[in-house]
Amino acid sequence: MAAATLARRIGRSGVAVMKFKSPPVNSLSLEFLTEFSISLEKLENNRACRGVIITSALPKIFSSGLDITEMCGKSIEHYTEFWRAVQEMWLRLYGSNMVTVAAVNGSSPAGGCLIALSCDYRIMAENPKFSIGLNEAQLGIVAPFWFKDTFVNVVGHRIAERSLQLGSLHPAPEAHKLGLVDELVPEEKLMEKAAAVMAQWLALPDHARQLTKTMMRKAVLDRLVAHREEDIKNFISFVSKESIQKSLRMYMEMLKKKKS
Amino acid sequence: MAAATLARRIGRSGVAVMKFKSPPVNSLSLEFLTEFSISLEKLENNRACRGVIITSALPKIFSSGLDITEMCGKSIEHYTEFWRAVQEMWLRLYGSNMVTVAAVNGSSPAGGCLIALSCDYRIMAENPKFSIGLNEAQLGIVAPFWFKDTFVNVVGHRIAERSLQLGSLHPAPEAHKLGLVDELVPEEKLMEKAAAVMAQWLALPDHARQLTKTMMRKAVLDRLVAHREEDIKNFISFVSKESIQKSLRMYMEMLKKKKS
Amino acid sequence: MAAATLARRIGRSGVAVMKFKSPPVNSLSLEFLTEFSISLEKLENNRACRGVIITSALPKIFSSGLDITEMCGKSIEHYTEFWRAVQEMWLRLYGSNMVTVAAVNGSSPAGGCLIALSCDYRIMAENPKFSIGLNEAQLGIVAPFWFKDTFVNVVGHRIAERSLQLGSLHPAPEAHKLGLVDELVPEEKLMEKAAAVMAQWLALPDHARQLTKTMMRKAVLDRLVAHREEDIKNFISFVSKESIQKSLRMYMEMLKKKKS
Repeated sequence: MAAATLARRIGRSGVAVMKFKSPPVNSLSLEFLTEFSISLEKLENNRACRGVIITSALPKIFSSGLDITEMCGKSIEHYTEFWRAVQEMWLRLYGSNMVTVAAVNGSSPAGGCLIALSCDYRIMAENPKFSIGLNEAQLGIVAPFWFKDTFVNVVGHRIAERSLQLGSLHPAPEAHKLGLVDELVPEEKLMEKAAAVMAQWLALPDHARQLTKTMMRKAVLDRLVAHREEDIKNFISFVSKESIQKSLRMYMEMLKKKKS
Repeated sequence: MAAATLARRIGRSGVAVMKFKSPPVNSLSLEFLTEFSISLEKLENNRACRGVIITSALPKIFSSGLDITEMCGKSIEHYTEFWRAVQEMWLRLYGSNMVTVAAVNGSSPAGGCLIALSCDYRIMAENPKFSIGLNEAQLGIVAPFWFKDTFVNVVGHRIAERSLQLGSLHPAPEAHKLGLVDELVPEEKLMEKAAAVMAQWLALPDHARQLTKTMMRKAVLDRLVAHREEDIKNFISFVSKESIQKSLRMYMEMLKKKKS
Repeated sequence: MAAATLARRIGRSGVAVMKFKSPPVNSLSLEFLTEFSISLEKLENNRACRGVIITSALPKIFSSGLDITEMCGKSIEHYTEFWRAVQEMWLRLYGSNMVTVAAVNGSSPAGGCLIALSCDYRIMAENPKFSIGLNEAQLGIVAPFWFKDTFVNVVGHRIAERSLQLGSLHPAPEAHKLGLVDELVPEEKLMEKAAAVMAQWLALPDHARQLTKTMMRKAVLDRLVAHREEDIKNFISFVSKESIQKSLRMYMEMLKKKKS
């Protein structure tokens, strides 16, 4: 098992930096998601760690989102395990007691965007070639309701409605204008800025900050917890459709051609 | 029965253009609403039709909103039938599976504004003399909760709270700034722009786009469906009050004087 | 008992001006809150009064928020009475049938900010030295859910989430940019502007405006009403913790040092 995610702790400040390193595009495979969740759990339980900066070790890409190969031609058991891992990752990240800062140093479609949206603060490299968004509709699939809830909590109902229906990938400047990311900085300043933002958030008393975060996010977290099995069933029934399998295969073909 | 609405289908692109043509001001009478709903239903059931552009065939006015004569001095039965037709129109339009684009080529108060708000995208002629808003409070009446819900989904809670309490009619530039309309273009470019926006939305796979739209709008649609009879009763009890009848009569007198 | 709040009615226009006058910083003591609620109740029941402008009679401060001495080293009975008075004030102000305009002529942290947020319109002196915000987290405490609900209704979920977690006090220009206040004017024009805004809101028929306001605010008001006793218990259990008492004492020490 390759080290998909790399968690490095910076001792004195209590801040971990987690770098996604799963070539070629940090796609969220079952293996990657499992390792990501375990890393988050370890940091969460480590009293020395108060915050985590999430970024990519690969050039030009933050994360390409859910690994489509996990959704193509697999068994019901596999789909179940995979989807539970996606849910688990989000429940841990969106509900984290740590301060979470996304340093988005590349493109970040679909599940990659969800990871950024689930953090407390999003800084993106100000490169108009990098884009971010929940573009599921472009692939003929539908973002789950909790992706949507997370998105609405960040950008509001109208921007989410339009962006989700169009499956938009927003170039960094547009993403900033829409409020999808909080700040743009030159790529070489990204980690420095992330550390500064982290320091600002860590200046608050942990307990009060954590209770406040819970107050803001509990309704949306509880909704998935209450409908978790139903959500898995929906995913399986959707992904098992021949029309969807065809769409996903066509999309993968397109990606392969683009690459070669 | 005069043709209040005119539905014309453009064969190849799968886009219908619906032009309101009920002089003098496209007010939403029982007859107009019935014809509008039937037209929407026909287009919805026509597999060749994937989108509809809604605009006005009259100069300077998109729609003046609910026809006040339907609310003055009529029977309970009439009020019931009228209000059910208003609900029906909104349920069809806000819940439409088609891509709906409003090409707002004139002023659009109250119910006219609701029609625009219920579409997927709103383009307005950039004429500051044209205004749009839910101005019910100005007439001494209250926008129904589902008008409000639709409004909040577009502009957010604060802008809706202020605009509804003041019964504001926003000139086009202000409406754009508030997010009430998505885009302003010179009046002569309105239909061209609407067609371009439609093409962008139709580039998405229908099924994914429709499910996404449903996910965004279902909560608000369900709320009226669950309280439909109660909402009719509220309307009747409100409109039957002598004070309200007096307000509406005064408003109609004012409109008549303005006209002459 | 000193006159903490001073209600003066301007006969002809039906507008009351309420000036906070509880030196040194208009902190919301049990006595102040009680007097404030009684004043609001009297105005509410006075048919001649249709609107109230709330401002401060002291320089540089609108209100410093909840009086921390009421939360330090007191009995359970006292905490209960105090918290009920905070709730009562908010229920009256946020649910008022009058038009309420906050003329924020100084800094307005925590409970002071809540008072401004609960009005229909907020005008602030455009002095960057004056700041406003729900900064509870800075003190190691958590804003109650109904402070949060009121805040979200004004600025939306994302801005509220960030501002509450950071316990931000926003300088007037930033507060305006975030939508926390509606307008900035030079301090000497504040009351004139407040009167003009009031006149604009009073031009609407009272009944329609009041029903519209209720429609917008009822869900959030009902939520406290339904959980009022639970909310009091939460406050008591929180404020009774030794760690919280320590935080509050430290904060009071800091304020004393700052002053001397």
